[in-house]
Amino acid sequence: MTAASGMEWLKSVKGVILDMCGVLYDSGEGGGQAIPGSIEAVKRLMASGLTVRFCTNETQNTREQFVQRLRVMGFDISVSHVFSPAPALVRIIRERRLRPHLLVHDGLTAEFEGVDTRLTAEFEGVDTSNPNCVVIGDAADKFSYQNLNEAFRVLIGQEKPLLFSLGRGRYYKETDGLKLDVGVFMKALEYAGDVQAEVVGKPSADFFGTVLKDMSLQPHEVVMIGDDLVNDVGGAQSCGMKGIQVRTGKYRPSDEQHASVRADAYVDDLAAAAHAILTVH
Amino acid sequence: MTAASGMEWLKSVKGVILDMCGVLYDSGEGGGQAIPGSIEAVKRLMASGLTVRFCTNETQNTREQFVQRLRVMGFDISVSHVFSPAPALVRIIRERRLRPHLLVHDGLTAEFEGVDTRLTAEFEGVDTSNPNCVVIGDAADKFSYQNLNEAFRVLIGQEKPLLFSLGRGRYYKETDGLKLDVGVFMKALEYAGDVQAEVVGKPSADFFGTVLKDMSLQPHEVVMIGDDLVNDVGGAQSCGMKGIQVRTGKYRPSDEQHASVRADAYVDDLAAAAHAILTVH
Repeated sequence: MTAASGMEWLKSVKGVILDMCGVLYDSGEGGGQAIPGSIEAVKRLMASGLTVRFCTNETQNTREQFVQRLRVMGFDISVSHVFSPAPALVRIIRERRLRPHLLVHDGLTAEFEGVDTRLTAEFEGVDTSNPNCVVIGDAADKFSYQNLNEAFRVLIGQEKPLLFSLGRGRYYKETDGLKLDVGVFMKALEYAGDVQAEVVGKPSADFFGTVLKDMSLQPHEVVMIGDDLVNDVGGAQSCGMKGIQVRTGKYRPSDEQHASVRADAYVDDLAAAAHAILTVH
Repeated sequence: MTAASGMEWLKSVKGVILDMCGVLYDSGEGGGQAIPGSIEAVKRLMASGLTVRFCTNETQNTREQFVQRLRVMGFDISVSHVFSPAPALVRIIRERRLRPHLLVHDGLTAEFEGVDTRLTAEFEGVDTSNPNCVVIGDAADKFSYQNLNEAFRVLIGQEKPLLFSLGRGRYYKETDGLKLDVGVFMKALEYAGDVQAEVVGKPSADFFGTVLKDMSLQPHEVVMIGDDLVNDVGGAQSCGMKGIQVRTGKYRPSDEQHASVRADAYVDDLAAAAHAILTVH
């Protein structure tokens, strides 16, 4: 597409939220590699005066570890500008004074150290050896029958079972093939425990709301750029934002004929998106 | 309840289908133990001239192994009178000339020996290393992340994914606690592969139909006795049979106020059910 043809609405945009995997980089061996033009595009967007934030459903690493990996690839990104499900859930857990049973990736557990269930329980006066909710992330190999049974028993033991899922993805691609994502095990535990999970992360409106609050912008002033039509573009649109889908990452041509979600624009990659945005600013 | 009060409909009954676990025996250490009065009740029903069949969703053992266990408990049951999901699925696989990828309990694999996927594929002229459907049973510990990924990749590799599930149970009770049942992993793979599983076993109408055919009886001539309100009683009723729920096994008092399924009678145990039936015959 030509730079800003049909994208005059970009003039009212004051902020940009960028999805990360599939927009900034492709995951793969050694942590993945930057998508051509994306490092420069991020740099230009940040230098333009627009408010830029990053929004990912990554739950295999702590935010710090994750940002560190992107820095190695060449991105100049600050941890405080990255929004991922785990810190958002930690806030919820603190607010509601819950005692979580965690079924998450080993790499992620550090993110929860600040929550320390023992600490919460002392504060609440309730025994910590007695979790009252279940949190699942993309636990990968830790999704064993034994660990799923354990999580299920916590759920079924509650009068009102409470299940949090860090995202609702079906699967993702790694160098050695497709891998089941957290949403699959969310569905499993939902059925087992007769419970509807609370999803933290995209496309949750609460999650996008936290990012918008941090940007001090109204939804109509912000555009989300992602490769996932439903969770990035559709999720952002449901909150009143605009949504651009890039033709990189998990993008498939059939996305442009999707039954219910239509992006405000489809562009080849982040470089093209940045060019279109900066042309009108 | 008194013997046959309000159960005059029993007069037209010519056959009885008995659920097994929770009706005949309770599972547990050493294979479980007979529920008091059930051995004698089975004996009396079979001696009465009624046609008696057994219908289970057991998929952790072959039918032969399973019946052997019941004989040890004291039940005089013939293998040919027991209907379980695996042999029913083997028939489907043979009829449709499918090449299954099996994710089933180790104890069950023998049941599929007759199907030998190599044989089917030779017959079809298609390579057996290339399965075109997935079969899941109550695989228990074999439901690892790796095995689930493998099954998922078979599904996602098909133009029209085909998933068979041996039952759709949520969980069951063993001596060391509640265990996730096959239905939970069916839901997981359904979501991952964007597919609706074909359930073989109760409450499938095809499955009950096979039993009725073997009994040479019409649905309205048969009563199903089970401890599972939805899969036993509701499933049988959907096929035009009557359904009695026993207050043993997984029965819970709340079953008698279920939103959508109402048994034709609730009785304390199999002995009471047999007494009511035999009183009018």
